[in-house]
Amino acid sequence: MLAGAVAGAAFPAVATTAASVPTATAGTVPRTSGTARAGGTTHQVTIYAEALPNGLYGYGLAPGEATVPGPILEMIEGDTMEITLVNTTDQRLSIHPHGVDYDVHSDGSPLNASATEAGQTRTYVWHTREKAPSTGRMWLPGSAGYWHYHDHALGSDHGTDGIAKGLYGALIVRRKGDVLPDRQFTVVFNDMTINNLTAPDTPIFDCRLGERVEFIAIGHGNMEHTFHLHAHRWADNRTGMLEGPNDPSPAVDNKDLNPGSSFGFQVLAGEGVGPGAWMYHCHVQFHSDPMSGIFLVRNEDGTIPDHAQEAIDYFHGHHHGGHDEHEGHGG
Amino acid sequence: MLAGAVAGAAFPAVATTAASVPTATAGTVPRTSGTARAGGTTHQVTIYAEALPNGLYGYGLAPGEATVPGPILEMIEGDTMEITLVNTTDQRLSIHPHGVDYDVHSDGSPLNASATEAGQTRTYVWHTREKAPSTGRMWLPGSAGYWHYHDHALGSDHGTDGIAKGLYGALIVRRKGDVLPDRQFTVVFNDMTINNLTAPDTPIFDCRLGERVEFIAIGHGNMEHTFHLHAHRWADNRTGMLEGPNDPSPAVDNKDLNPGSSFGFQVLAGEGVGPGAWMYHCHVQFHSDPMSGIFLVRNEDGTIPDHAQEAIDYFHGHHHGGHDEHEGHGG
Amino acid sequence: MLAGAVAGAAFPAVATTAASVPTATAGTVPRTSGTARAGGTTHQVTIYAEALPNGLYGYGLAPGEATVPGPILEMIEGDTMEITLVNTTDQRLSIHPHGVDYDVHSDGSPLNASATEAGQTRTYVWHTREKAPSTGRMWLPGSAGYWHYHDHALGSDHGTDGIAKGLYGALIVRRKGDVLPDRQFTVVFNDMTINNLTAPDTPIFDCRLGERVEFIAIGHGNMEHTFHLHAHRWADNRTGMLEGPNDPSPAVDNKDLNPGSSFGFQVLAGEGVGPGAWMYHCHVQFHSDPMSGIFLVRNEDGTIPDHAQEAIDYFHGHHHGGHDEHEGHGG
Repeated sequence: MLAGAVAGAAFPAVATTAASVPTATAGTVPRTSGTARAGGTTHQVTIYAEALPNGLYGYGLAPGEATVPGPILEMIEGDTMEITLVNTTDQRLSIHPHGVDYDVHSDGSPLNASATEAGQTRTYVWHTREKAPSTGRMWLPGSAGYWHYHDHALGSDHGTDGIAKGLYGALIVRRKGDVLPDRQFTVVFNDMTINNLTAPDTPIFDCRLGERVEFIAIGHGNMEHTFHLHAHRWADNRTGMLEGPNDPSPAVDNKDLNPGSSFGFQVLAGEGVGPGAWMYHCHVQFHSDPMSGIFLVRNEDGTIPDHAQEAIDYFHGHHHGGHDEHEGHGG
Repeated sequence: MLAGAVAGAAFPAVATTAASVPTATAGTVPRTSGTARAGGTTHQVTIYAEALPNGLYGYGLAPGEATVPGPILEMIEGDTMEITLVNTTDQRLSIHPHGVDYDVHSDGSPLNASATEAGQTRTYVWHTREKAPSTGRMWLPGSAGYWHYHDHALGSDHGTDGIAKGLYGALIVRRKGDVLPDRQFTVVFNDMTINNLTAPDTPIFDCRLGERVEFIAIGHGNMEHTFHLHAHRWADNRTGMLEGPNDPSPAVDNKDLNPGSSFGFQVLAGEGVGPGAWMYHCHVQFHSDPMSGIFLVRNEDGTIPDHAQEAIDYFHGHHHGGHDEHEGHGG
Repeated sequence: MLAGAVAGAAFPAVATTAASVPTATAGTVPRTSGTARAGGTTHQVTIYAEALPNGLYGYGLAPGEATVPGPILEMIEGDTMEITLVNTTDQRLSIHPHGVDYDVHSDGSPLNASATEAGQTRTYVWHTREKAPSTGRMWLPGSAGYWHYHDHALGSDHGTDGIAKGLYGALIVRRKGDVLPDRQFTVVFNDMTINNLTAPDTPIFDCRLGERVEFIAIGHGNMEHTFHLHAHRWADNRTGMLEGPNDPSPAVDNKDLNPGSSFGFQVLAGEGVGPGAWMYHCHVQFHSDPMSGIFLVRNEDGTIPDHAQEAIDYFHGHHHGGHDEHEGHGG
């Protein structure tokens, strides 16, 4: 089973001028526990690689359900995932993971003869492990991390065309006891797009005040990027939270997100800052107009504050114009 | 009150061929303590945004005193800062902080209707907090960090023109007990400039042997950069110093400094290497000629060693030429 | 003495279509201990800077033995290295280290009049130190790190031509007790090359299953890069291994490698994934074809698995074509 499911009732639709708001999560099944269980499970997953409109490609968990990005795949250290990739397209493609263990037959690369030809099916096996003592006081790291998967074969031996056209997704490996989120959002900076979309059509990441929200940020393509989130910050370590009071990790709210890299973190939505339409965007200035979107933190009851609805309308309808400024407060 | 003031007597002028040496600190008031006090103070600050010669803009703490970069703003975790921004220009602009807490009315973005129109005044409120226990052994990070502030409205909804023209500065949030520096320098890599200057007009960061010097490095603009400092290094963590003998952070002397990111660190000037004119520069090679400057470590008595004066003269007068090499020593 | 020597019997030649496979290590002298000794030694090393065919330059430990990259130089915290640089070329050049202590006469820069003129010899002195207690619970970092050295004078005051043409190498400073590797490989991303080579002529990093292999990754030139290694990962901290079970460092298998930066790590070759021809490459997509190579993990007995030999042949002979895919396993 995928563990990428996320709790929370469905929201009323966000009132926007955009035709649709992409969702970035794999499902809405409630979680049964606040922390990650022990590992050791074998997950059997079938993933369908499909051609999409507009020349895109996507991965999906059922025929006709491919999305960009693909579903969030989750494991706990100690788990195994057996992925049967059904290539429904007329192109050679594959699935290649970061962070987990696989032998050469599951590399997903043409170099290791492990791509999937057009119309074919192939099973890839990914293993994970816990950290382990090594020499002296040193430990070998486990598999836990905010990783990702992507094509490594469509159009070139490095999957350059497949990645450009949407064949990518988030892969999370948790350590036993890691804190589980209420909602999850995958944000992929892929050349001058977010999830192959540009503003104002970029995702609205939609949640309620106080929810524990997990971002998985992934870089792809040919360009440098920096991911910035307004009014929220995280520890620049494995989880985004400090591992005790003496963890020396810096807090950041802007982080390099370059091709092939990924990171993740959890924030308590709106904590200390309130609900609102908070921007996320690439901070490279000439990217910041097309590569921006909204992290919508609703009121606790699920309603949208007036100022947030105004901001959404501004973003969608008046993106390059202006509107009357509010009066300063406390000034 | 601003806490950005830094101890130390004024130096005699550095003998250079440049007309002026920019200063990067907000003042010269001596510090009264070696470590950061407890937080909880509310600072009320008025900042003037002004047009400067050559098409630049700057922030300043009094009319007619705007600089590029703006003043160093400092808080301790638990403090609040109320900033009254006086926009003396004929352009819409704002002030947007990284790392701290603010509601949508203090976002500084046109999206949240919180820019300041030409000729207007607006108050922005920034809060900070200490780290706090969360689930399990995890802690939510506090606000402490080497952050920055910048325009988010001049010329575009992301302040692209405002940033390009100088509307940026350092924002430091300390944790109670953090070590205070003797001197501070803000260094901003902004497209192909340092603090909107190019060599040989880049700042000379001027100090004495043994002083605890704090750098706050900020990236802006459209290009990738790496900040390199000769003969000094720091821990790549929150403070630049190790949090005890088992802190796993690497030491670095070259670090990515990309748009919207910032970091800071303290070094003991010249420790183990002696006084001298030490280079700092972007290590991207085609940036390294325009984006280089001098970290001048004087003798303890404030005099400048002959070799350092020769290096400064070389930098300013013969920047693209050569001069006689010293003999090797010990060879 | 250099400590860059690495244990291990010579391998039989890898069967490839390439004329030669560059080696990245300085020697093959067996190590005598599993962990780094105490520091305090003074190393006296003579390095020859030489012109090479094809317009390249290299550093070497004996006349006529210059390589690109240069030899791995190693120290333990507390050691000193006195490097006599013999400039056998007709160009001004130098050697400039990262991470260690040196006075202005050993800066290696024209700014500090410490380059070496054509045909001349000059001695550079590098010191190292252990971490030391500072104020409060803070410690000053020691010199330990995966650093590098490079020219700072050929063709420009920043050595831009010297670096472009091959004057660079790895410099390791270990902390007493650090774990020593069985093999070492230097990988330099220098503009659109790896060690000034492009695929399929990039190095094959050659080892046996289970060996402790150390990579030293260095960035140079003008472009952004990310270093990705298939099927292996490391902790993103000083050593690549966790400093105990609560080390908060993330595990990574893809890391920014930008000009002037460096990092290193150790992996147990093939652990959990088996032998094979594992790719390493820049993950910036348009770099990934020229900037890829093979990390060859042989069987424990030194033989090459058939699938690995097939992958090597594919890489060298059919790099832009295709070959029959293996059947999926377990599917």
